[in-house]
Amino acid sequence: MTDIKMPLRDLRFVMSEMLDTEKHYESLGYEEATPDVVDAILEEGAKFCENVLAPLNQIGDQQGCTWKDGEVTTPEGFKEAYQQFVEAGWAALPHDPEYGGQGLPPSLGTIMSEMVGTANWSWGMYPGLSHGAMNTLEEHGTEEQKQVYLTKLVEGSWTGTMCLTEPHCGTDLGMLRSKAEPNSDGSYAISGTKIFISAGEHDMTDNIVHIVLARLPDAPAGTKGISLFIVPKFLPNADGAAGERNGVACGSLEHKMGIHGNATAVLNFDGAKGYLIGEANKGLSYMFTFMNTARLGTALQGLSHSEIGFQKSLAYAKDRLQMRSLSGVKNPEGPADPIIVHPDVRRMLMTQKAISEGGRMLVVTCAQLVDVTHKGDDEAKKSADDMLAFLTPIAKAFLTEAGCESANLGMQCFGGHGYIAEWGMEQNVRDARISTIYEGTTGIQALDLLGRKVLMTQGELLRGFTKKVHNFCQAEIDNEALAPFVTKLQELNKQWGDLTLHVGGKAMENPDEVGAASVDYLMFSGYTVLAYLWASAAKVANEKLAAGTGEEDFYRAKLTTARFYFERILPRTSSHATSMLSGASSLMELDAEHFAF
Amino acid sequence: MTDIKMPLRDLRFVMSEMLDTEKHYESLGYEEATPDVVDAILEEGAKFCENVLAPLNQIGDQQGCTWKDGEVTTPEGFKEAYQQFVEAGWAALPHDPEYGGQGLPPSLGTIMSEMVGTANWSWGMYPGLSHGAMNTLEEHGTEEQKQVYLTKLVEGSWTGTMCLTEPHCGTDLGMLRSKAEPNSDGSYAISGTKIFISAGEHDMTDNIVHIVLARLPDAPAGTKGISLFIVPKFLPNADGAAGERNGVACGSLEHKMGIHGNATAVLNFDGAKGYLIGEANKGLSYMFTFMNTARLGTALQGLSHSEIGFQKSLAYAKDRLQMRSLSGVKNPEGPADPIIVHPDVRRMLMTQKAISEGGRMLVVTCAQLVDVTHKGDDEAKKSADDMLAFLTPIAKAFLTEAGCESANLGMQCFGGHGYIAEWGMEQNVRDARISTIYEGTTGIQALDLLGRKVLMTQGELLRGFTKKVHNFCQAEIDNEALAPFVTKLQELNKQWGDLTLHVGGKAMENPDEVGAASVDYLMFSGYTVLAYLWASAAKVANEKLAAGTGEEDFYRAKLTTARFYFERILPRTSSHATSMLSGASSLMELDAEHFAF
Repeated sequence: MTDIKMPLRDLRFVMSEMLDTEKHYESLGYEEATPDVVDAILEEGAKFCENVLAPLNQIGDQQGCTWKDGEVTTPEGFKEAYQQFVEAGWAALPHDPEYGGQGLPPSLGTIMSEMVGTANWSWGMYPGLSHGAMNTLEEHGTEEQKQVYLTKLVEGSWTGTMCLTEPHCGTDLGMLRSKAEPNSDGSYAISGTKIFISAGEHDMTDNIVHIVLARLPDAPAGTKGISLFIVPKFLPNADGAAGERNGVACGSLEHKMGIHGNATAVLNFDGAKGYLIGEANKGLSYMFTFMNTARLGTALQGLSHSEIGFQKSLAYAKDRLQMRSLSGVKNPEGPADPIIVHPDVRRMLMTQKAISEGGRMLVVTCAQLVDVTHKGDDEAKKSADDMLAFLTPIAKAFLTEAGCESANLGMQCFGGHGYIAEWGMEQNVRDARISTIYEGTTGIQALDLLGRKVLMTQGELLRGFTKKVHNFCQAEIDNEALAPFVTKLQELNKQWGDLTLHVGGKAMENPDEVGAASVDYLMFSGYTVLAYLWASAAKVANEKLAAGTGEEDFYRAKLTTARFYFERILPRTSSHATSMLSGASSLMELDAEHFAF
Repeated sequence: MTDIKMPLRDLRFVMSEMLDTEKHYESLGYEEATPDVVDAILEEGAKFCENVLAPLNQIGDQQGCTWKDGEVTTPEGFKEAYQQFVEAGWAALPHDPEYGGQGLPPSLGTIMSEMVGTANWSWGMYPGLSHGAMNTLEEHGTEEQKQVYLTKLVEGSWTGTMCLTEPHCGTDLGMLRSKAEPNSDGSYAISGTKIFISAGEHDMTDNIVHIVLARLPDAPAGTKGISLFIVPKFLPNADGAAGERNGVACGSLEHKMGIHGNATAVLNFDGAKGYLIGEANKGLSYMFTFMNTARLGTALQGLSHSEIGFQKSLAYAKDRLQMRSLSGVKNPEGPADPIIVHPDVRRMLMTQKAISEGGRMLVVTCAQLVDVTHKGDDEAKKSADDMLAFLTPIAKAFLTEAGCESANLGMQCFGGHGYIAEWGMEQNVRDARISTIYEGTTGIQALDLLGRKVLMTQGELLRGFTKKVHNFCQAEIDNEALAPFVTKLQELNKQWGDLTLHVGGKAMENPDEVGAASVDYLMFSGYTVLAYLWASAAKVANEKLAAGTGEEDFYRAKLTTARFYFERILPRTSSHATSMLSGASSLMELDAEHFAF
């Protein structure tokens, strides 16, 4: 078994060399985020992830969480690791100093989350869900709610959840039935059943703060009648500590394909005491604060599993001896050559490498936009908000689809051994598989992108990005070293606009054309966004090489990977384009009862 | 949970309407395979699979096989189902009447295997492995070996295995170390460790016949020094019954991602008595008999999991209410529309449908070629052998890759519920995942196709198929109803030849170009083969509609699915073509130590 290493060199390439993070933090006034602090966070975070979390990843899968009489026990070592995490202050990293946070940039929190997720995704979901709860309270909670709940979440002594899904509704939250009846003391009695609640019950902290969607008695039907409540597992005492047990209980845990280390709970609310967040009936719009955090967090998951697959299959491919290279023996002393000599094994490794490194560029780009939405001036905020609205569904759906592909390729490199549990590759595939489903499936992200973000803005959000690409291409048009990238990128950028116009036109006549084109459109967009990022990386690498560097091999590898991406992955855009141009008719023609006979 | 139904209407479409199986059997002299017999086999086989095997599929996954002191217990009900299978005579179906078989065409056996696999793949592997052992003995065994072992395998009272892989070698069998020392009585003492032995130990029969690859003491190194042996678990007594225990023991079972109901054994041979099959040092060529059976058998697995995913997700999509159709409410009485109204859900269903039905056409086509290799005249045999040599790696790799895609789409249709064990969709994904690995990975099949089958024959085997496609296109060139299919097919057929010339040319200079192009070439080939089959299906459907039929909806659905396949799946060929044309350089450029820093 290979030890996972945090990709610090690559993270620094993206942060310092591609995105000039030092200047970015400085210009936003994140004074505490000095280069030294950032460096210390990377180094210490990596150590914690490699030494504490990664060794628990397989244990978490094997042991899973156990439920007994409503109480949940997490796998061996999970609780202790959480204590270390809290003691080191990791939970508080990007949060408001007024409530105990360290006030560091959200993007640093994201980078820490990438490392945590790569070490042990299931474990990372416990503190991960808290972030969404904290963001919701920071933005929509009252001062009292912040003092009582946010401070505990920031210090990590309690964790949070998000309780949306019910047995009969997941995507379609307008159908939700959980009820909130007003109590005489201003609180509410919450009743109903919530399912698929990640980190919904566990033994790591002495309280859990559920953020729950429910309906007031007089609420309008559908999504306009949903309110948001804080429902703690234990009601806080006057001194702030967890007190009396509230009327919420974990009815069972789901048996899942993967992420066994995380407890996916069925929660029964039986007149549990809850506190309204913000105004009544505005819960769904508040939830989007939570949702956007969660969607970027899930994009990270694609990257994490891609990185795990890449690292482990790379080590195996260097080690496993099998067959001779077709172009001549490479390891004459051995009984066979290491399988990394075989072109198709390299194709699988390079694909994982291109997805992992390109995915990292996309995630850090999005994370820094989040920084701007917090601390930028009004104009910068608006522009970052728009760009983030556009990139979030792409990052979520494209990176998780690509992450699943990567995880599967990593497993494939192992041959039969990949299917056997002990190597960890099949766990990586199982763990990755949820990422294209939760927090809105790929299909839902695609509708969000094409329908809400692109067509409903008359293409404005798309143009915000294609203009960036256009400017890059114009600036580099005479740069010979980048020519193969720039030519292709210009072409794709134009095609992106044309496809949008085409689908938009058809959608005016038949709204089903949007759904018919959406996933192909999203994947086309994802490949194109990554092409822009890989071209940008190539530009940086060329500059470094031209300037002379002690790390020639590193920058040359970036150039080779960029070329691989353009030559071998990017051609997929053409299939997606052709497929979406064919329109809705072959999809919509069959009556439901004629799909099978 | 949906009950799985055997797709009898669709099987009959392929067998009777596309391939005129009645005439095919008659012309080969399979006199017993009358339409009545074929029909009875389909009907009775379907009943057995639906009523006996399918209900054990989830139990098999949950219970798995258990190992204790070398003995293996299969899941509840597996043994009893096997007894019923044997009593009904299913094991003997396609085998030689001289040794107790029914002498029915191999293709009928394949069709039964499809149904068995769709009902319960893990269970099906126990009798499935026996088929390979039987074929090997039929072709290469002595009369005595046939009397002693083949008769028992045909009656199903014993099962067979194939023991190739060792811990340090899977693909590269030239490295194998198991030894065979001659005994004075003409038998051999076999020693060594074999891993990944499917159905390698179980409690269903009172003996297991292992077919084992090992080396004689004076054998040449590499693949030319491998011999093939029969090593029974119990040595047969003079009366033919299982007698004394032989020196082979199951050391453990592997913990796998899926196919838990099948025992994947580590077998330790410790001077076990073995009997040479055929001549010394020719074992590997004999193994190809086994291998080809196994590869077609694995192609079936892709089809089986695709069919399961399709049936279950179709039922769910009709039942699950979530969101309203974008083109207007379709279910005004309900709180939401069934998700089958949504275009992207239909995209996932249609993809599974096109893969399942197209895959069935390919599998039955291959199976009928096997019939010809058994009973055709010399010329027909040679031609069927060639076509089969060409189609086998395509069927194996393409259908298993497509089968995994289908299984994943089936799971995706279920949203969050797909990830939960009780629905069976994640089991389907886990079970399917081994199929692109065992019996030669996708990468190995691709090298076999492009290297051995296409380039080493100077394109002869490819031309055998493209000529068939060309003739079809020529014959239908004026058929307006088929025009969109024929035009595209002609184009692809030509492109296939051009790509082959291009890659072949480059390979003369650098053999790594073969490996670099191979998987894209295989996938391009698979999509094109299925395009030919879907165009052929469309031709049949058009003819039936023109002639007037009581099943108009059935044939219209075939036409819609053909159109869907051409419009929405076939465009993938263009990405594969562009990717393979980019050549080996971006794959081969990096030194092994520069993949990560």
